[in-house]
Amino acid sequence: MNQNNLAEPLDFNLTCPIPIADYPRVTLAHGGGGRLMRDLIQKMFLSAFNNPYLNQLTDGASLAMTGAKLAFTTDSYVVRPIFFPGGDIGSLAIHGTINDLVMCGAKPLYLSVGLILEEGLPMTDLWRVINSMSSAAKLANVQIVTGDTKVVDQGKGDGIYINTSGIGQLYKDPIGPHLVKPGDGLILSGDIGRHGIAIMAVREGLEFESKIESDSASLAAVVDDLMTSGIEIHCMRDLTRGGLASGVIEIAQSSKSQINLVEDAIPVREDVQGACEILGLDPLYVANEGRFVVFAPKSEIDRTLDIMRRHELAKESALIGQVRTGTGGLVSLKTKIGTSRIVDLLSGEQLPRIC
Amino acid sequence: MNQNNLAEPLDFNLTCPIPIADYPRVTLAHGGGGRLMRDLIQKMFLSAFNNPYLNQLTDGASLAMTGAKLAFTTDSYVVRPIFFPGGDIGSLAIHGTINDLVMCGAKPLYLSVGLILEEGLPMTDLWRVINSMSSAAKLANVQIVTGDTKVVDQGKGDGIYINTSGIGQLYKDPIGPHLVKPGDGLILSGDIGRHGIAIMAVREGLEFESKIESDSASLAAVVDDLMTSGIEIHCMRDLTRGGLASGVIEIAQSSKSQINLVEDAIPVREDVQGACEILGLDPLYVANEGRFVVFAPKSEIDRTLDIMRRHELAKESALIGQVRTGTGGLVSLKTKIGTSRIVDLLSGEQLPRIC
Repeated sequence: MNQNNLAEPLDFNLTCPIPIADYPRVTLAHGGGGRLMRDLIQKMFLSAFNNPYLNQLTDGASLAMTGAKLAFTTDSYVVRPIFFPGGDIGSLAIHGTINDLVMCGAKPLYLSVGLILEEGLPMTDLWRVINSMSSAAKLANVQIVTGDTKVVDQGKGDGIYINTSGIGQLYKDPIGPHLVKPGDGLILSGDIGRHGIAIMAVREGLEFESKIESDSASLAAVVDDLMTSGIEIHCMRDLTRGGLASGVIEIAQSSKSQINLVEDAIPVREDVQGACEILGLDPLYVANEGRFVVFAPKSEIDRTLDIMRRHELAKESALIGQVRTGTGGLVSLKTKIGTSRIVDLLSGEQLPRIC
Repeated sequence: MNQNNLAEPLDFNLTCPIPIADYPRVTLAHGGGGRLMRDLIQKMFLSAFNNPYLNQLTDGASLAMTGAKLAFTTDSYVVRPIFFPGGDIGSLAIHGTINDLVMCGAKPLYLSVGLILEEGLPMTDLWRVINSMSSAAKLANVQIVTGDTKVVDQGKGDGIYINTSGIGQLYKDPIGPHLVKPGDGLILSGDIGRHGIAIMAVREGLEFESKIESDSASLAAVVDDLMTSGIEIHCMRDLTRGGLASGVIEIAQSSKSQINLVEDAIPVREDVQGACEILGLDPLYVANEGRFVVFAPKSEIDRTLDIMRRHELAKESALIGQVRTGTGGLVSLKTKIGTSRIVDLLSGEQLPRIC
């Protein structure tokens, strides 16, 4: 059972709308601009993502917005394997781009989907991914309004790569590192490291007592509550590639402030910690797909925690650090044994292709 | 010399900002969220695409719009080879998404760029592509405001795939097939088939007397003149995958009208015609990347032609057909020998991976 209960396709029992007997696998012709591509778009994509914008079937969607302050974001997803405990590349692509928008302080409205399919991809895998995208988008109340499909030769891709770009409407002026101030509290929305470890466990064939599932989830609802609470949120960041450490370091650098973290306050599940030890990883750097940090003024920390904890996916929210005057760009960690160490960017990555 | 003179990088003599001696090729770590990725983004992408939106370096760009009617589009580019006569995957990705926006009747403003790089891609190839994107965007006066970079293992990509999504501002209410009416004239902006043949010639090692170059170009300037001319343009379509035939068929189907084309009026260069014969292709279905059709009221055809012909890339614009009452969805072609034939969608594609 996915702990966030958001990534499960709602209705995967629906029959694949492309006849599997005729087209068991994606062919180059499905990306060729002819009848097969039209069928794929009309029978599969339009039925799954059904909305008036997409149904126009023009090269782009024409959108009406009630306001003129937008956020715009893009992300490509190349996760391997495409199905993993707690999600798949489809729900991940929807959640990820929604989360990028909400982290800018924007309400997500419209998404685009660009598919790069590898010739030979089983048609049922494509259908399962499309279904999962549709479910994730509906649950987060965003619309997939425009799309594109390309097919590359076998051996020039890896099943499916997905780009999702998104448009959101800013709640107010943009938030970000430029608003981060000494004294701000740093709140983390829950335990870290689950997404990266869920992926690695599948790849490495690791077995744990309880299955470790990705934390992949849309943060739209909890951020909506925060942004409409009247609390002056300064900055938010989701903790994807590079994990908590890289996210916080980037903010320390952009805001030219020092950030002090307290290791004891950062929740890591025991099984995730154990897996990290086996794999030689530091959970601070492991990717998450449904975790975020919030920078809020000191006086608003309790109220921020209170709002976040009302949401199942942020019920373990905790204050994990503070912004200080001091050395701009520096992140320090007070360890469990009471010493202090500098947290630095890794040169590459711990885990390739986890998103 | 590129006939449109738009796709040539302006300043490729600039030194690659990533030290080639240290990093001759893209590594998995360049996509890992750590220091190498930060360097790539800051030293290469920010310096090439430099603008205040992108420089915020947050997960998404915050944009101000003066108006609330938008167009939104996405396209992935997987063309092989990535460098070809008349352009490369970078300029193609910029032109293509700009063209999708202008075909909706929108002025292109902001683009996103999502890169999927294959481990081992020569760093200088990446730099050349980035430079070309930067030049194409500057020439068309659009800004690349947000981006994403992923690196996949060697053998799981093909050098570089690019997604570009775009936001434009509608000139007025959306145009499209729903406005197409019997009596409308169908104007084509120039000769067809050059992009597809330029790509195939490289792949197949074909030599022609004169080099056939892609027609890849931004249509923003000519469409801007059309949309601000006061002419009531009904519909436009760029003639990419599937060529002129597929574009016109789609419009006939969406608008439930019959469209009659006159083969004699459709310009095809002699060398392109020759290459099509060698390769067994019908130029009507060959992809273009800088050609488009315009549906305009009968009374405005001359004025439309006049405006289009003022632009170098549309100087050979010609009336090639007419919308008729008749069989909805049907496209018929009056051939050079005076007979009439039905133009139908191909099932797949003539040419894989030409965009």
